[in-house]
Amino acid sequence: MAENATPTLDHALDALFNPRSIAVVGASDDPAKWGNWISRNVLKGAHRREVYLVNRRGGELAGYSIYPSLRDLPAPAEMVVLAIPAGAVEATIEDALAAGTRVFVAITAGFGEQGAAGQAQEARIVQKVRDAGARLLGPNCMGVSDASAELYIASGDDATGPIALVSQSGNLGIEIGMMLQREGLGFSRVVSLGNQADIGAEEVLDSLIAHPETRAILLYLEGIRDGRRLVASAQRAWHAGKPVVLIAAGVSQVAARAARSHTGALATAADAIAAACRAGSIIQVATPRQAIAVLQVMLPPARPQGPRLGIVADGGGHGVLAADLATAAGLTVPALSEATQQAVRAHLPATASVVNPVDMAGGGEQDFGSYGRVAQALLASGELDAVLFTGYFGGYSTESQALGEQELASAQVMADARDTTGRALLMHSMHFAAMPNQYLRQREVPVYAAAEDAVEAIARTARWQSPPAPPLALPARSPVVTADDYWSARALLAGAGIPVAAARLIPAGEPAESAGLRYPLVAKALGLNHKSDAGGVLLNIANEAQLLQAVADLRARLAPPAIVIEEQAPVSQGIELIIGCRQDPAFGPLVMVGFGGIYAEILRDTAVALGPISEGDAETLIRGLRGSPLLLGARGRPVLDIPAAAAVASKLSLLAASHPEIAALEINPLLVLPAGVVALDARVTLG
Amino acid sequence: MAENATPTLDHALDALFNPRSIAVVGASDDPAKWGNWISRNVLKGAHRREVYLVNRRGGELAGYSIYPSLRDLPAPAEMVVLAIPAGAVEATIEDALAAGTRVFVAITAGFGEQGAAGQAQEARIVQKVRDAGARLLGPNCMGVSDASAELYIASGDDATGPIALVSQSGNLGIEIGMMLQREGLGFSRVVSLGNQADIGAEEVLDSLIAHPETRAILLYLEGIRDGRRLVASAQRAWHAGKPVVLIAAGVSQVAARAARSHTGALATAADAIAAACRAGSIIQVATPRQAIAVLQVMLPPARPQGPRLGIVADGGGHGVLAADLATAAGLTVPALSEATQQAVRAHLPATASVVNPVDMAGGGEQDFGSYGRVAQALLASGELDAVLFTGYFGGYSTESQALGEQELASAQVMADARDTTGRALLMHSMHFAAMPNQYLRQREVPVYAAAEDAVEAIARTARWQSPPAPPLALPARSPVVTADDYWSARALLAGAGIPVAAARLIPAGEPAESAGLRYPLVAKALGLNHKSDAGGVLLNIANEAQLLQAVADLRARLAPPAIVIEEQAPVSQGIELIIGCRQDPAFGPLVMVGFGGIYAEILRDTAVALGPISEGDAETLIRGLRGSPLLLGARGRPVLDIPAAAAVASKLSLLAASHPEIAALEINPLLVLPAGVVALDARVTLG
Repeated sequence: MAENATPTLDHALDALFNPRSIAVVGASDDPAKWGNWISRNVLKGAHRREVYLVNRRGGELAGYSIYPSLRDLPAPAEMVVLAIPAGAVEATIEDALAAGTRVFVAITAGFGEQGAAGQAQEARIVQKVRDAGARLLGPNCMGVSDASAELYIASGDDATGPIALVSQSGNLGIEIGMMLQREGLGFSRVVSLGNQADIGAEEVLDSLIAHPETRAILLYLEGIRDGRRLVASAQRAWHAGKPVVLIAAGVSQVAARAARSHTGALATAADAIAAACRAGSIIQVATPRQAIAVLQVMLPPARPQGPRLGIVADGGGHGVLAADLATAAGLTVPALSEATQQAVRAHLPATASVVNPVDMAGGGEQDFGSYGRVAQALLASGELDAVLFTGYFGGYSTESQALGEQELASAQVMADARDTTGRALLMHSMHFAAMPNQYLRQREVPVYAAAEDAVEAIARTARWQSPPAPPLALPARSPVVTADDYWSARALLAGAGIPVAAARLIPAGEPAESAGLRYPLVAKALGLNHKSDAGGVLLNIANEAQLLQAVADLRARLAPPAIVIEEQAPVSQGIELIIGCRQDPAFGPLVMVGFGGIYAEILRDTAVALGPISEGDAETLIRGLRGSPLLLGARGRPVLDIPAAAAVASKLSLLAASHPEIAALEINPLLVLPAGVVALDARVTLG
Repeated sequence: MAENATPTLDHALDALFNPRSIAVVGASDDPAKWGNWISRNVLKGAHRREVYLVNRRGGELAGYSIYPSLRDLPAPAEMVVLAIPAGAVEATIEDALAAGTRVFVAITAGFGEQGAAGQAQEARIVQKVRDAGARLLGPNCMGVSDASAELYIASGDDATGPIALVSQSGNLGIEIGMMLQREGLGFSRVVSLGNQADIGAEEVLDSLIAHPETRAILLYLEGIRDGRRLVASAQRAWHAGKPVVLIAAGVSQVAARAARSHTGALATAADAIAAACRAGSIIQVATPRQAIAVLQVMLPPARPQGPRLGIVADGGGHGVLAADLATAAGLTVPALSEATQQAVRAHLPATASVVNPVDMAGGGEQDFGSYGRVAQALLASGELDAVLFTGYFGGYSTESQALGEQELASAQVMADARDTTGRALLMHSMHFAAMPNQYLRQREVPVYAAAEDAVEAIARTARWQSPPAPPLALPARSPVVTADDYWSARALLAGAGIPVAAARLIPAGEPAESAGLRYPLVAKALGLNHKSDAGGVLLNIANEAQLLQAVADLRARLAPPAIVIEEQAPVSQGIELIIGCRQDPAFGPLVMVGFGGIYAEILRDTAVALGPISEGDAETLIRGLRGSPLLLGARGRPVLDIPAAAAVASKLSLLAASHPEIAALEINPLLVLPAGVVALDARVTLG
């Protein structure tokens, strides 16, 4: 997997966004039919390309003859849109491929999302398409639109703008389009992915980096196909200055069930998605509203570069609330310097508060110019990364035109101050749709109907930092592991340089001998998954007599194929971590670190990263755990050996990556001591 | 403090909501003045009561003569509204009191929110008003409105409806009014509290319980004056079936700074507010949008009684997202029984998903009646506490009137099904303002523009349970404590029956003798706040020789007035808790439990309750801590003595409540052992 090479879309896929000719199969002259709506959308680009309408029944639509079949077209269609029953899709595709069609948009549903038979048929169709050098979008999708190419299949009436939408839900695409339009924004491209049977999100993301009309990318995904490639594409988008916002759906168990029946997607675990978003500097959100709120902050020339927020309210309550929201979102609301306070005070009544939040105390309605002057003073102060106005602005325009013109003049000064200073400016107003606020939208000053949307969007934007180093390259495959018992798992770890306790294997029937191991010992019966629960682990074996008795006891109760005797580690001198790796279908090897034992239960914080990871990255993960003071010598505890634990996490991640046949590999616990670590139990789960 | 008696508003306060006569002092014929706007509002009720306009300059407004002073009125005004400069307020009030005015609405700002001089004047004015048997709303407020009495001061154009707003911010009141109106809701009463110099939120809340037009109460408070009375009133509101929703502002440090300059409010700590909301079954939210979202769920006849949510989407994506949101909000999305799945499937296409979330898969647009039938099947199933439709509903009405009428008929069936079954029904639609959704609003089916608002509101409503038992009655005052050294604090605890280690006090100059204490001992230098940090605590003193050395060492380094020697507790056998009490200016004694030592740092969960608390309530608090498995014998640890810890928390809370002169009283740590507990350090902070 050459994950860091720049993939280029093949020519067949280029045709997806600007085909020279399109045939709509399933065109209909009945306005109640989907095939009618699509045909009318496609015909909007008829001055740019040949459009052929096809339906077995023939007929006419908007002055265009409907051809009875693809074979009747005067020339082959480069793109074929399929809006016909599922049963007719495969044969139609075969006809089109024979005629030279290079890209299909399969609106038709009823394939991979409908169980095993549908999946098999979907795979067969994709194979035929690919064998012919063609590509397919969908099935079970809403199509594609590209504003600059005047290509409309997914929708014909969305507003045009700087945002590309890549979505696995048609209705969400419609909703997002409506929400963007209310904010004066719109789509550069819309790609409805459907089941992603051939063309996937990661390929489309690549195409958007090179698309000049696209300034930001919004993904709605229920399933991720090639997570590593998606992350690599997102990193390239970051470096190209194009934010990628992801609405990751189906992350809860019950939603995963729903996603499976919606787009056939295998849900990706929430922790894997979060790790991928960190790795790719993707901004993860949960809802369309959150996505649009953050896109509004991302698009303007001045984005917040840090957490320092200035708040200006025309009534005190809004300032108080916004300050609470900002604090809760992790932003700071710093007290302004004396100089800046003076600069602000000069423009406001004596009763105004100027520390931050600034309460204009009626200053705005006494003199509308004060809005602009306060904005200027704050944006130019150099003390703030963003300034949020919150409250009533724009409301006077609803009372009289004269007042509205004064507000408009203020809005102009405010937006100019943003441009001059390069600092972010945002507006929350109860009159969010009023004329002066529409003007601000035109100037790309984001306007919000709720202060919480603005504040959360600033917080998300302030965290949009350069992506971290990519995960280490995947190592060469090691010889396949076929045994998953504890003795084999131990040997696997030891072979990778991970410290394990000294031990001996005593097969059934052989005598128990400590043979140089130092007491106290532990005896573990092999062949049990939850050894401790089943009484298969005996601790504190102090001498030969106790060893004989322990082995006899285990054999009598459990008849294990073998028993491992192991030097007992000084558990009370350390802290137990869990280090785990698993193969994720979308993201490949993932590595997880967390606290073990009772801390696993009460802390419930683990950190997950795309593997394999370096020792340095592993140390960062471990130190980022909420419980890390347990390792750092706080409150008179000994300082524990974090570098040694990090080395184990790195080695385990490399080991797991070289064994894709191992579904999961876990050390639980890894005992971290003042000097060194030791793996006290290990489990291999074969795929 | 008879906190559970039902307070009744005195007659002067009754006049606040329906005065027989009003004088507006500061009335103005200049449309740009506040006094003009207020006068015109008040005149809307001129057919219900005498309205007198007063301004030194005289003149005329809307056909009414403006009197030059209160003394010129033909009859005394029962209510006087003050919209004049701060300097003229006191004299005007004196005049009015002399004439018999019983209630003042002081719009004028510039008192308690403007520093010490303003506070003093405000207190003097309030005293004069009260001495005359009158009452005052404000100052620094927007006034009061009562729709059924046609009394309008705070606002003249808000929609009428079932919600009473009690607010410390005028602009937020305007915003909330606009937001309610968009949801087809409005105000029964609006009370703008301003600085709460006389009339406070708790009194107004009481008045609303008896107000038939008010079905739900929304509070916006920056400061809480008498928290215990507010909680008692909220409990009564709960029993009257009137939900109380609180936007508590100023809970962050920086917002508290802003609140102080806005309404002069002393911010109440966030944990105290949360404890009060639990005690009063008050629904706490952070923003107006959250408040209105939850009010919409609270008002209909069928409220969600539990967490089981049914989700119906007309496209899969919305169902997947709503299921994620519901899971994150703590709701469940249970798989439907086979019988219910069949009942739903009967109304939908074969490709529909019917497990929950239900994906109608285009069934709605094929047959609009299916919306109503699916709603019926789910609401009648008995398997769900609420059903949320999410997606496109109402959108077809924007395409044609005929389709709109079909949607409207569905909406009617849906609302009827809600009424018949008594189960909650909610709608999220991207076409939230479309006609069929306006119809749903009229039927009190809440309609949302964003699914997250609906889901969070359901989750909040499902938690709206019967309030818990009130805190224990305040005990009698104990003799005043004046010493805050460790030896005195220890004695105070021991006197309250809290176990402390055996100890002796060795004053400066006296010889160190163990005198029957059992080694090992601890020596603590008195007179230091952070004894350990200053090296004032010496541990592991094993014998008389070490004791002499330790005492000599402490005296040489710190010259303490005395040294306490104490039997050392077996710290490694237990877990350390922190039990603290403090006197809150708004809520009186509060009690806090949490984990001590390193766990305080890594767990950061504490539980706070209004004190004093019983042993049973204390045990509930302790068991509710996230770290409670540390006490419960998990993972081979000993089971620790939670009842003994709970007894200490209860005793400490009673002790603190009997000593209001103690600002804070803390045991840190309380060592919890397998049998018993012992307080290892204690601190008294005098108020």
